[in-house]
Amino acid sequence: MKIKAVLNDLQAYKPGKPIEEVQKELGLTSIAKLASNENPLGSSKAAKAAAIAALSDTSIYPDGYAVNLRAELADFYKVDGEQLVIGAGLDEVIQIVSRAVLTAGDNIVQATPTFSQYALHADIEGVEVKSVPVDTDGFHDLKAMMEAVDHNTKILWLCNPNNPTGTYFSHEELINVLSRVPDHVLVIVDEAYAEYAIAEDYPDTMPLIEKHSNLMVMRTFSKAYGLAALRIGFGVTSKKLNDKLNVVRLPFNTSRVAQSAASVALADQAFIAECRKNNRLGMAQWEAFLSANNYDFYPSQTNFIFFNIERETAPVFDALLKRGYIVRAGLRPGWLRITIGTAEQNEGCIAALKAILAN
Amino acid sequence: MKIKAVLNDLQAYKPGKPIEEVQKELGLTSIAKLASNENPLGSSKAAKAAAIAALSDTSIYPDGYAVNLRAELADFYKVDGEQLVIGAGLDEVIQIVSRAVLTAGDNIVQATPTFSQYALHADIEGVEVKSVPVDTDGFHDLKAMMEAVDHNTKILWLCNPNNPTGTYFSHEELINVLSRVPDHVLVIVDEAYAEYAIAEDYPDTMPLIEKHSNLMVMRTFSKAYGLAALRIGFGVTSKKLNDKLNVVRLPFNTSRVAQSAASVALADQAFIAECRKNNRLGMAQWEAFLSANNYDFYPSQTNFIFFNIERETAPVFDALLKRGYIVRAGLRPGWLRITIGTAEQNEGCIAALKAILAN
Repeated sequence: MKIKAVLNDLQAYKPGKPIEEVQKELGLTSIAKLASNENPLGSSKAAKAAAIAALSDTSIYPDGYAVNLRAELADFYKVDGEQLVIGAGLDEVIQIVSRAVLTAGDNIVQATPTFSQYALHADIEGVEVKSVPVDTDGFHDLKAMMEAVDHNTKILWLCNPNNPTGTYFSHEELINVLSRVPDHVLVIVDEAYAEYAIAEDYPDTMPLIEKHSNLMVMRTFSKAYGLAALRIGFGVTSKKLNDKLNVVRLPFNTSRVAQSAASVALADQAFIAECRKNNRLGMAQWEAFLSANNYDFYPSQTNFIFFNIERETAPVFDALLKRGYIVRAGLRPGWLRITIGTAEQNEGCIAALKAILAN
Repeated sequence: MKIKAVLNDLQAYKPGKPIEEVQKELGLTSIAKLASNENPLGSSKAAKAAAIAALSDTSIYPDGYAVNLRAELADFYKVDGEQLVIGAGLDEVIQIVSRAVLTAGDNIVQATPTFSQYALHADIEGVEVKSVPVDTDGFHDLKAMMEAVDHNTKILWLCNPNNPTGTYFSHEELINVLSRVPDHVLVIVDEAYAEYAIAEDYPDTMPLIEKHSNLMVMRTFSKAYGLAALRIGFGVTSKKLNDKLNVVRLPFNTSRVAQSAASVALADQAFIAECRKNNRLGMAQWEAFLSANNYDFYPSQTNFIFFNIERETAPVFDALLKRGYIVRAGLRPGWLRITIGTAEQNEGCIAALKAILAN
C-alpha cells in the first residue's frame, strides 16, 4: 500500500504532554501558557453564554453554510456573504485554499520565518516553497518576494503582522504589491493578529478585494477573540474563487458551538478594544525589560514579542518551564517568542527570565 | 489566477435554508428532521455536561493530539493509541486519508449508491471513481467490487452498514475480501452506523487490523452518540499508515468541547444500548407500514430506512415538509430515505406519508 510520495519525507507533529500533566510532574501550582499567542483575558463573556446555549441539541448537524455568522461577518466587514469561506480555524482555511489552488509544478512564495502551515500544505500538494528571508528589521522583504514570483507561482503568502517576527507592512506597501504582482498569482494576506495592530498605516485590506480578484484576506477568532478552543476562522476573496473553495470545504466543517460563539464575540467589540489596550500595556512591560538589558527585539503589532537572548534557547525554555512559564523556542537560534499575558504574568515571566539569564 | 483543473467541473454544495426559517415560512409549530440520520434521543446527558465544562477556557487551543480521548478509545477498542486518527467528524477523516493516499492516475472502488464523500475527495485529487452498483437486495456486490480492483486501485471503500441502503455484509464476507484484495489496496470500512447494527454476524473489524495492515476502520460520534453538532469521528489503521495520516491532519483539528463530550459519551454505553433498542422499535413501525402497503424496502442495520414509493419523490418531499417532516429524497429515483425518529415522530411521519401517497 502506497501513500503520496511527498509524505515519505514529512513527519507528523509530535505533541508535548498536556499542560495538566507537566504541572503535576513539576509540582507547580500554576502554569502560564505564553507559547501560542492565546488571549490571556479569555473571551467575551457573552460569547461563552452563546456557546453553552448552542449545546442545547448536540445531535443535530451544524448549519454547514454558517448562514447567521456569514451574514454577520459580511455586514461587519462590508463584503458579500458569498465572498466568505469559513473554516475550523485559519489552519483549515489555509488547507482549503492550498488544496483548491496548488498542483504539482507550481510554487508558493512566502517569507521566512513565517507561519509554518503555508509551507506544510505546499509540501503535501507536492509544490515548491520559495522562502524569502525577512530583512534585518524582521520585515517582509516585499521587493525580494516579488522578484521570487515567477510563471509557476500560484500563491504569494503575506503574513501581516508576521508570525513570529510581529512586524507589519503598510497599506501603501500592500497596494504596491497588488499593483505589481501578475494576475495569475493569488495574494493571500493572513491577518490573524489584525485586531492587535495599532499602527495607523496598517492596511485596510477588505475593500481592496473588489478591485483585486486575486486577493484573499484571512482572519481568525482564535487570537484576540479568544475562541481558539472552538476552532473558527475565515477567508474573504472574490466570489468566483470562493465558490470553488467551497467545493473543497467539508460540508459540516465548523461546529454549531463555534458559529454561535463567534457571532456573539464579533458583536462585542468593547471586549476587543479592552484586549488591545491590555496588550499594549503588556508590550510596554516587555519592551522596557528588553531595552534596559540590551536584548534585540522586533517592534510588534501583535500579542507576542520575538527577541534575541543570544544563547541556546532550549535550556532557557526548560528553566522557564520549571518556574511555570511555557514560551516558544526553536523558531530561530537564540530567539524566543513570548505571548503578551496579563500584567501579572508578564511581570512574573520577566522576573523569571531575568534570573535565568543572569546565570 | 488558476484553480485546480478538476474543480472546474465540481459545484459547491448549495445548502437549504436553516430549519428555523423553513418552520417560520410554513407556519409550523415544530419540524422533525428525519433527513440526516441524527439521534432522536439526543446524546448522553453526561456528555453534554462535559461539553459545558470544557468551555471553561475557550481561549486556549485544544489538545491537538486529543491525548485523553485517544487513550480512552484505544482502551475501549483494544487497539494502540498510535493507530488512531481523530477528525472533526468522519468527513474530515475521509478527507485526510484521501489526501494522504490518492495521486492522479489512481482509482478508488466504491459501491453505488453509497456515502457521497468518498467520490468527492477522489474527484478533488483527480482520481478515477469506479462505482459498482449494489445488488438487487441493496447489498454491496463484493465480488464485482473485487473484480473492479486493478493495479491502480488505491482505496476500496466499504460502507458497512451502507448509507443509504442500510444493508450490511458479514464478518465472514469481510474476511473473504481481505484475503483476496491485493496488498497495494487500502480497504476502508466505514462503520458510521455500527452502534445500530444488531446482526450477530456483523463484523468485529478492529481485531482484523493487526493481521491486515491495509485495513482501516472508521467510526463516528455523529450518529448513535448524538454529537453531530460538535464534529468528531476517528479512523483506526496500522501505526505505519496512521503516522502519515497524522502529517496531513491539521494540528488542532478537533475542538476541546468535542473531545470532552466524546470521552464521556464513550463511557455511557447504557445510553447507546437504549438508543439501539429505541431504534429497533421504530424500525418495526416503519417495516410494518411498508410491508402492509407493499412498498419495497431494504432490511436496515442502521437508524434509517430506504424504500421505494414508486413515484416522483420531489412532490412527496414537499408535501411531507409542509406537514413538518424533513426526509431525504434524490438519492435514487422513486426512493426515500427516512431516519428512524422517536415513536411519536415515526407515527406522525408514517401517517403523513400515508395520507400523501393515498392521493
